[in-house]
Amino acid sequence: MGHNITLVLGGARSGKSRFAEKLVVESGKPRAYLATSQAFDPEMQARIEQHQADRGEGWSTWEEPVDIVKILQEVSNEDNIILLDCLTLWITNLMMAERDITAEFKRLVDALPTLPGEIILVSNEVGQGIVPENAMARAFRDHAGRLHQDIAGAAQTVYFVTAGIAQKLK
Amino acid sequence: MGHNITLVLGGARSGKSRFAEKLVVESGKPRAYLATSQAFDPEMQARIEQHQADRGEGWSTWEEPVDIVKILQEVSNEDNIILLDCLTLWITNLMMAERDITAEFKRLVDALPTLPGEIILVSNEVGQGIVPENAMARAFRDHAGRLHQDIAGAAQTVYFVTAGIAQKLK
Amino acid sequence: MGHNITLVLGGARSGKSRFAEKLVVESGKPRAYLATSQAFDPEMQARIEQHQADRGEGWSTWEEPVDIVKILQEVSNEDNIILLDCLTLWITNLMMAERDITAEFKRLVDALPTLPGEIILVSNEVGQGIVPENAMARAFRDHAGRLHQDIAGAAQTVYFVTAGIAQKLK
Repeated sequence: MGHNITLVLGGARSGKSRFAEKLVVESGKPRAYLATSQAFDPEMQARIEQHQADRGEGWSTWEEPVDIVKILQEVSNEDNIILLDCLTLWITNLMMAERDITAEFKRLVDALPTLPGEIILVSNEVGQGIVPENAMARAFRDHAGRLHQDIAGAAQTVYFVTAGIAQKLK
Repeated sequence: MGHNITLVLGGARSGKSRFAEKLVVESGKPRAYLATSQAFDPEMQARIEQHQADRGEGWSTWEEPVDIVKILQEVSNEDNIILLDCLTLWITNLMMAERDITAEFKRLVDALPTLPGEIILVSNEVGQGIVPENAMARAFRDHAGRLHQDIAGAAQTVYFVTAGIAQKLK
Repeated sequence: MGHNITLVLGGARSGKSRFAEKLVVESGKPRAYLATSQAFDPEMQARIEQHQADRGEGWSTWEEPVDIVKILQEVSNEDNIILLDCLTLWITNLMMAERDITAEFKRLVDALPTLPGEIILVSNEVGQGIVPENAMARAFRDHAGRLHQDIAGAAQTVYFVTAGIAQKLK
């Protein structure tokens, strides 16, 4: 069965990526990893390498900061499972590339149910703190909230991870 | 039956207002909307207009940044349901107007169970990020947390909305 | 039975300390309070005094900003229950004292199951807002998330408190 979509949300260092990786490994399917991260600085480079080490062997890996729909459509097949980590970095990349955010979100949400294989999307909850003073941070926060609602609406399953513990929201 | 109080909490762009509006519409009662927002700038004006368009027809609407208890007492009746959106903006307005926050909170919490009709209050969760460097933001965050506890204590029902999905906390 | 470990997480002004204190009082055991807070300024001093007043009588109290494992090992016994409030302030204190964060976390997580008595640990969820611009705040947030995962893994019971309402996560 195709179009099995799962969203894994959680705060920073909540264990959301580890939980999502566990779901993927437990599926027993051939697994692909699509990273939206780019190593702009040593801090980010160290995070990426730590994540790779945590994930272990057995993954085919793609890195794409912006055109993730294109990669998803190329990589997804009836047998495999894709882990996309993470949506919030993708939003940042779209903003930096000055893409049309609404159009890109629609493109992703429309594409998800048409993928032949399973997909798990990871994203950061960023909307439960104080309103940021910075206008770009406010815009980012709004985009993230809207995308989470759209993806959660399209998903069969939604988890929220806190302190390494996953709650099933849907 | 009077004094039916519901609190809907959620982060920014979590879908909390839409969920609360759905609750109101599903009640089938005459519905009133009490907005605490004021259009200080084009960004806020655009948000208000978007919210109004999302809500659709069939609402009587009040706008009151500070003296919400007075409006609630005037508008509430045994047949209707009031949607108050949102408490966090009300707190900001109280702070800007240099009102006695503790007294205003007590006035609201005392008034809620005496209203003849149903009320749904919407508010932003703002306390789950990093401690703000700005002292006024810290004070705001503390006020919001205290008010949420007080309202949740007075409410029969409390929801927390994440990515458009409501969890019933109480 | 020893090593009964409970973690109580929640945002700022969520009612997490009050909920943890209620758990302690309901245990009926002799109760000890270990505060990690230090009164650096009048705002903090006022918070500490308010917390003490809220807690009421019947507690033996310790204050230790950094070497909490030493105090836990001295104070814990087969009969009593310790309330440690809070871990996030402890992390701040470790950072200010330039301690080895990873080593200190390991020391605590290793010590918890060896304590003869019961312990309830309180901590702030700080990872669900926007990424902080300040690098030290980002480091703090990462430390907090990692520690919460570690403590939650070692705990028998984990609660998340929102608006004074506790959800049992584990």
